Amino acid sequence: YKNGLVHVKNPHLDSMDEDVLYHFNLGTKTHNLPVMFGDIKFVCVGGSSNRMKAFAQLMHKELGLEGDGKDLKDICAGTDRYSMYKAGPVLSISHGMGVPSISIMLHELIKLLHHAECRDVTIIRIGTSGGIDPGTVVITDIAVDSFFKAQFEQVILDNIVVRSTELDKDLVEELLNCSKEIHDFPTLIGHTMCTYDFYEGQGRLDGALCSFSNEKKLEYLKRAYDAGVRNIEMESTVFAAICGLCGLKGRISCHRPFPFHVCSCISSHFLISSTYGFGQLWDLYNVKTKNVFQTSFIKKYINTNLVAS
Amino acid sequence: YKNGLVHVKNPHLDSMDEDVLYHFNLGTKTHNLPVMFGDIKFVCVGGSSNRMKAFAQLMHKELGLEGDGKDLKDICAGTDRYSMYKAGPVLSISHGMGVPSISIMLHELIKLLHHAECRDVTIIRIGTSGGIDPGTVVITDIAVDSFFKAQFEQVILDNIVVRSTELDKDLVEELLNCSKEIHDFPTLIGHTMCTYDFYEGQGRLDGALCSFSNEKKLEYLKRAYDAGVRNIEMESTVFAAICGLCGLKGRISCHRPFPFHVCSCISSHFLISSTYGFGQLWDLYNVKTKNVFQTSFIKKYINTNLVAS
Repeated sequence: YKNGLVHVKNPHLDSMDEDVLYHFNLGTKTHNLPVMFGDIKFVCVGGSSNRMKAFAQLMHKELGLEGDGKDLKDICAGTDRYSMYKAGPVLSISHGMGVPSISIMLHELIKLLHHAECRDVTIIRIGTSGGIDPGTVVITDIAVDSFFKAQFEQVILDNIVVRSTELDKDLVEELLNCSKEIHDFPTLIGHTMCTYDFYEGQGRLDGALCSFSNEKKLEYLKRAYDAGVRNIEMESTVFAAICGLCGLKGRISCHRPFPFHVCSCISSHFLISSTYGFGQLWDLYNVKTKNVFQTSFIKKYINTNLVAS
Repeated sequence: YKNGLVHVKNPHLDSMDEDVLYHFNLGTKTHNLPVMFGDIKFVCVGGSSNRMKAFAQLMHKELGLEGDGKDLKDICAGTDRYSMYKAGPVLSISHGMGVPSISIMLHELIKLLHHAECRDVTIIRIGTSGGIDPGTVVITDIAVDSFFKAQFEQVILDNIVVRSTELDKDLVEELLNCSKEIHDFPTLIGHTMCTYDFYEGQGRLDGALCSFSNEKKLEYLKRAYDAGVRNIEMESTVFAAICGLCGLKGRISCHRPFPFHVCSCISSHFLISSTYGFGQLWDLYNVKTKNVFQTSFIKKYINTNLVAS
């Protein structure tokens, strides 16, 4: 896209007198968005508000910004839908759980970046996921649905439109290289499967409803693995689809493309020879340790690119 | 269901040594769930954590419980996924936005009620929605999808299973009667449409992406209206489907059936002759006033039934 600007694809927006970003409690008449956000270069998004606050605080410290990062204010304090923190050129936002929740956030984020006239923005989803090996970080090359298809079905009024979920290939390599310089940091590239449900949709045996056997579950997970899936979460397809439509296509060869997707695995869904169930592995896994790994990695990438630009 | 107990439909649960309700930060080994929750008779759920806290505080006061309702603690304080407050026999829980988010909550809520051996529990979703008339409360009789079908498609592994989204008809009448005794309280019964997206899926012209004209939007909303739809939100189909499977079927003629669904409208999607867009009407509508209406109504229903039981 020309000049590196973030694109909205909505002809109606130009004729609107005011744009209210309902779920951020921000708007073009009530807030000076270019002044508040014009310097943003990186947007990091994740499900949990506590984690995204901690991430912003860490970035504040690591970037050597003035003041105490512990005082960072939630820019969306007027609403409890999402939390948003800014640390210099890094914006850190929570998106809740699931495709619809992150979808609302992405619509309003992209309009925010558009109104603020931000340029050359990279968006990163960081989060936890079920995956092949506890402690592994997966860099997503393609997001796939429950049927292992690289597509996102968007219902527009009552029409189903199929959108692409590919992510930037150059960037995947760039990210993998970052990870190599950090010790004890197991990272792999793979497809990420996105489901609409945590229990029945991801083969868990411990929901309120479960109609399949352990054998059926393992057979499904093996098929997913054979199709290239390395982890499972609940937001990646719509993330890839919306971000791709609003900025990726023209920037595939850019050194700082938009968007990409990183997940750390928190479970061992794919250890098909293991006797552990999900619940047991949950306890075995130290989430905090892993988040530090993933954060180091993102930090390294952001620092490298800020120095380069 | 026998003895009014809440049912789980998962044969694997019996053989589990421990059940961890991950997103509530509760578990059968770490918490005495029957002692904590055994007296629950009503569960009220809604998207926003602030609103569900305020609702619990109001119920605490209205039920004349001891102590200051302002001190109510978030039972899920150990996680930021959901918030949960208890006011005597009323449990108030937030569920975030969208089908996947409420689905995770419902799985764990139903297991919680099961482990706590709760009996004769009524669950109520209270929330905001786009609808026919700002300030109206809609009591949902049937939840429908974007194609106006009374069904919820659940993906189980990679199979699509269709589930019913009907709600209890006797209760709908009972609720309507409650509303009649409160003045200036416009209430109607209708179908509620559940979408996976707030912008493109609900005909909004102000998202980051919009590929349809205002005429196409109005034509779609008119078809929805003609099909019986009176409001639009993002959780009702899975709410009706999961709650129905876990407790409704055997209790249709019970005076306190499970589940039901009430929404207050916050917008005028269906004012098809109006020139107002969604954003403009949002400003015209006083959300706080409406929440007081809706809360009075639920309060009346709960008080009536607690006295009767």
